[in-house]
Amino acid sequence: MTNSDDGLPGDDSITGQERRSRSTRRKILESAVQCLATKGWNASTVGVIADAAGTSRGALQHHFPTREDLIIAALDYMFDQRVRQVDEELGRFVEDEGREEHVVGLLLDYYSGTLFKAALQVWTVAGADEELRKHVLPLERKFARAVHDLAVRLLRADDSDPDTHRMIQATLDLARGLGLADVLADDSARRARIAAVWAVQLRGIKSLPA
Amino acid sequence: MTNSDDGLPGDDSITGQERRSRSTRRKILESAVQCLATKGWNASTVGVIADAAGTSRGALQHHFPTREDLIIAALDYMFDQRVRQVDEELGRFVEDEGREEHVVGLLLDYYSGTLFKAALQVWTVAGADEELRKHVLPLERKFARAVHDLAVRLLRADDSDPDTHRMIQATLDLARGLGLADVLADDSARRARIAAVWAVQLRGIKSLPA
Repeated sequence: MTNSDDGLPGDDSITGQERRSRSTRRKILESAVQCLATKGWNASTVGVIADAAGTSRGALQHHFPTREDLIIAALDYMFDQRVRQVDEELGRFVEDEGREEHVVGLLLDYYSGTLFKAALQVWTVAGADEELRKHVLPLERKFARAVHDLAVRLLRADDSDPDTHRMIQATLDLARGLGLADVLADDSARRARIAAVWAVQLRGIKSLPA
Repeated sequence: MTNSDDGLPGDDSITGQERRSRSTRRKILESAVQCLATKGWNASTVGVIADAAGTSRGALQHHFPTREDLIIAALDYMFDQRVRQVDEELGRFVEDEGREEHVVGLLLDYYSGTLFKAALQVWTVAGADEELRKHVLPLERKFARAVHDLAVRLLRADDSDPDTHRMIQATLDLARGLGLADVLADDSARRARIAAVWAVQLRGIKSLPA
């Protein structure tokens, strides 16, 4: 293994101090996402996030000089983690039978998790804040591309077919809409029913040969 | 006409002072939605909204004692207005040919307008604020039911058929997701392509006889 979870050189080449610093960094990033999702944008101050990570404000600012740096890094880090997880999880799912149901269910649940709720806080504020939007837009585009590619791969879809490409996009837009519906109250039962109906629609997309 | 736009008794029974007060109330509500959509939750203070409405803070607070009262009333008022508009607009569209395209296009654009952007600001904050959520949830449920009924009526769908019911729900979840995608940057071109693909899917729902 040459790379650890955070994309830095592997554990074999680093000192104990570097390892601790990296572990602190990871805890800060995870706490930032957790705070945003549960306490919202305004309450997720640098002080609150440092507390939740069990570190000091100074230590946090050593890693992330501004609140904006921290929040963007946190979303980016958690996103990479989650994409890798979903990818691995579905790499093990090889059957063709019921593939659409499985993939749609997973994608829809993914958009109702902590990461989506944290991102929603940031996207919404960025919608009315030009300065923040400049930082958020490239990240949003990266996320959109990566999740699209993931869905294409998992569904074994022929993305070169225009209607198939749009149905994949619609699937992710639907997932985002269902994620938003889950923000005020638990919407998982309804979401499961929608997933079942949607999976049937997806059977019509063009597939690549296995 | 016995009722005016704001659901109060019609113009024939009120005095000039009442008429002015009602007009101020309407301007305040419209300004609140506009401010939320363009400046975001934090910047939409009572003072900023009063300024935008060309009225005083005192006059605003005469109509709406708290910021929360104002924001909930503003979303509610604008929502009723918009549903009525869409209803009238589509009441005039009687052709069966291309009906799905027309309705889907309208619903999708509706969720990318000012009202959705204002509501998103409030929903997102409410997602992490239990007190606000108590006020917002009944409103959200009212909106969800009313837009569902509207979509059913416009599509002349047989909502008693479970799959049809879910496809209508999915359409609105998709619309919400596309609305969210439009918050950071203009997404109208992509939205139009998704609408076209989705309208084709909707041809499979069960219709009521005309």
